[in-house]
Amino acid sequence: MKSEIISVGTELLLGEIVDTNAAFLAQQLSLLGIDLYWISQVGDNRARLLEVLRRAWGRSDLIVVTGGLGPTDDDLTREAISELVGEEMAVDPELEKWVRGSFSRMGLNMPLSNLKQASLVPSARSVSNPFGTAPGWWLEKDGRTLVAMPGVPREMHRMWNDQVLPRLRPHTGVAVLITRTLKIMGKGESEVEELLHEFVNSSNPTLATYAKDDGIHVRMAAKATTREEAAGMIGELEEKAWAILGTFIYGTDDESLATVVGRLMREMGLTLATMESCTGGHLANALTDVPGSSAFFKGGLVAYASEAKTAWGVAQAVLDEYGQVSPQMASAMARAARERLGADVGVGITGVAGPGEAEGQPAGTMHIAIEDRGRERVSSSVYPRGRLDVKRVATLRALNLVRRFLLGLP
Amino acid sequence: MKSEIISVGTELLLGEIVDTNAAFLAQQLSLLGIDLYWISQVGDNRARLLEVLRRAWGRSDLIVVTGGLGPTDDDLTREAISELVGEEMAVDPELEKWVRGSFSRMGLNMPLSNLKQASLVPSARSVSNPFGTAPGWWLEKDGRTLVAMPGVPREMHRMWNDQVLPRLRPHTGVAVLITRTLKIMGKGESEVEELLHEFVNSSNPTLATYAKDDGIHVRMAAKATTREEAAGMIGELEEKAWAILGTFIYGTDDESLATVVGRLMREMGLTLATMESCTGGHLANALTDVPGSSAFFKGGLVAYASEAKTAWGVAQAVLDEYGQVSPQMASAMARAARERLGADVGVGITGVAGPGEAEGQPAGTMHIAIEDRGRERVSSSVYPRGRLDVKRVATLRALNLVRRFLLGLP
Repeated sequence: MKSEIISVGTELLLGEIVDTNAAFLAQQLSLLGIDLYWISQVGDNRARLLEVLRRAWGRSDLIVVTGGLGPTDDDLTREAISELVGEEMAVDPELEKWVRGSFSRMGLNMPLSNLKQASLVPSARSVSNPFGTAPGWWLEKDGRTLVAMPGVPREMHRMWNDQVLPRLRPHTGVAVLITRTLKIMGKGESEVEELLHEFVNSSNPTLATYAKDDGIHVRMAAKATTREEAAGMIGELEEKAWAILGTFIYGTDDESLATVVGRLMREMGLTLATMESCTGGHLANALTDVPGSSAFFKGGLVAYASEAKTAWGVAQAVLDEYGQVSPQMASAMARAARERLGADVGVGITGVAGPGEAEGQPAGTMHIAIEDRGRERVSSSVYPRGRLDVKRVATLRALNLVRRFLLGLP
Repeated sequence: MKSEIISVGTELLLGEIVDTNAAFLAQQLSLLGIDLYWISQVGDNRARLLEVLRRAWGRSDLIVVTGGLGPTDDDLTREAISELVGEEMAVDPELEKWVRGSFSRMGLNMPLSNLKQASLVPSARSVSNPFGTAPGWWLEKDGRTLVAMPGVPREMHRMWNDQVLPRLRPHTGVAVLITRTLKIMGKGESEVEELLHEFVNSSNPTLATYAKDDGIHVRMAAKATTREEAAGMIGELEEKAWAILGTFIYGTDDESLATVVGRLMREMGLTLATMESCTGGHLANALTDVPGSSAFFKGGLVAYASEAKTAWGVAQAVLDEYGQVSPQMASAMARAARERLGADVGVGITGVAGPGEAEGQPAGTMHIAIEDRGRERVSSSVYPRGRLDVKRVATLRALNLVRRFLLGLP
């Protein structure tokens, strides 16, 4: 099955928005095993939209269109499809009831212009939209399938997942598709790919690696006729991947490092406190992005100035002897944060965010310490990039160090 | 002049990356006053790439291609263009010297496969790439111009700005284009557009409004034959916009609110300290994203637990009488942070990040206080969104409050 994506909207051609819809749909089609050969963006212009639709109709089996389903004169996707298939548009009474209903639920009267959102052509069925007033279209004709969805990403994602995906599956011959992502810190992409090379070229289940901002992702996907069978295939592959990558895997699917650390903290009944210098609050911010973090996160100190460090319990002697940017300082900060805030575990980060060097150490230097009364671990490294990347990476390394520390890993 | 963008790369069709290059180029073309009618993404497939190029050649005057200029067999943009214009590719000795040089500067030997990056067809000139090994192509033939640039955004942006834009300008009839962005907090997009309605439909200079994560952006662009004339047009329009929006404008062009607050702090020779609850370090993190923030930022406290608040100087009486989520608490936090850290100005933020409510107040509640010994300002509001949005917006409002406080604005 050959597919094609068409994104409609003049704002795309003015560069006012980035076409994230096309990337989302491309990934979905790829997971379904449907070949995608063309993506195009076209403005709110009926002739050019029709031209693009005609070409797609001539070469693709499945055409996925987003955008141009609004109520204004600029929204021309329905009109262009109607011309493409040579069928008249007419208001559908059931659909009109639904569109009117979605206005009255918001306590509003429906403007007359919205009536066109209740229109269909004979070959099309409507696809409901719980998040907006624009229903989608599902059209089958001459062996081709055309799906039109709204351009608002939130509405489109929901419509795709709830309505389009289930209708599409029978066409792909894939009854069930299950995906699983493993997230890795501490190994580079080429090393991960090397370790998993025997699975990389498999066609079902598939396995692919991606270098992302939060580590290396290993994405696995299995297709089968039953959920049980697909789950079994993924389970088997995942087990092999775990056997190879082991504790370098910090989480799966939507889990972030902060989520994982928070979960471990809560499971173990422990609390955490932080003192940060070069990351400037990035670590505390990441920890508090997780709902429920107040259960384990006592608080954090952003000790930018050296007098802030000593005011919060770092011994003047450490400052004098080792300076602000040193493993000893990170260690003293971890202990001071833990003691001051009465937490079980303390984290200290100091370094040089850049752009300039500090205390003779280059931008990108980072010293990270974890401490819990008895045990201590300190890690030092250099990541010579821009200021924001240094902050981000130091935070990730600190979180991963906490994770390994809690799990008793080296 | 009709233009068209083609992005090349199978990773786009697998949804592994979002095509931000097309959005960047679309915006640039729009600023140049060049009509853009089509954008397409196509994979690393020579026949399909050639098909897309042929269509573009038939309908557009300017074709901008990104991607497919790498050294591997998958990189087929040069080969497809060579077939499009019916000209043989050959290694250019000057270009070969440059490609070899860029390897030797990295202390590496050039792999043989990279030799194709030194190739040209007779109608093409090379476009240098200071950030990578793939030079671009600038090709003129039969009244058409085709520009091919690498797909790596950093390399492409630099090449566009430094090399392509200057060569393109004479073709547009626009000698100079100057843009200016004003950034606004405290007014919604429709209000800003309403206030500036007399300029919104002007064709030169143009003015458009955009709702962004950090407020409303007003983007102005002027085209003229000399820099002086364009600057004069922008200057005149900007003056009118300032007269209307005044102190709601917090910054221009690349300035962020944190940059502006940092600049004001340094200019006034003042220092800042923060105590955050619901934002969890987001404010400290934003402040320390700015290089040189150590000059004015004394430090921050992330007082998540109530005992952290009192441990750092908030009176128990305030906690008992008003609770953790109150204007009085924000005020006490601002004062405690300032005193503890010996800063001139203190900021306190408390609220409910969500998802659940706290102390009977809904998610999205935020109380923000600024204090400097003599003066104090407290602002309370509710922004009922998701946790991350609440944190982001509370930080922006706090920064804007500091800005207005420092400038003596109401």
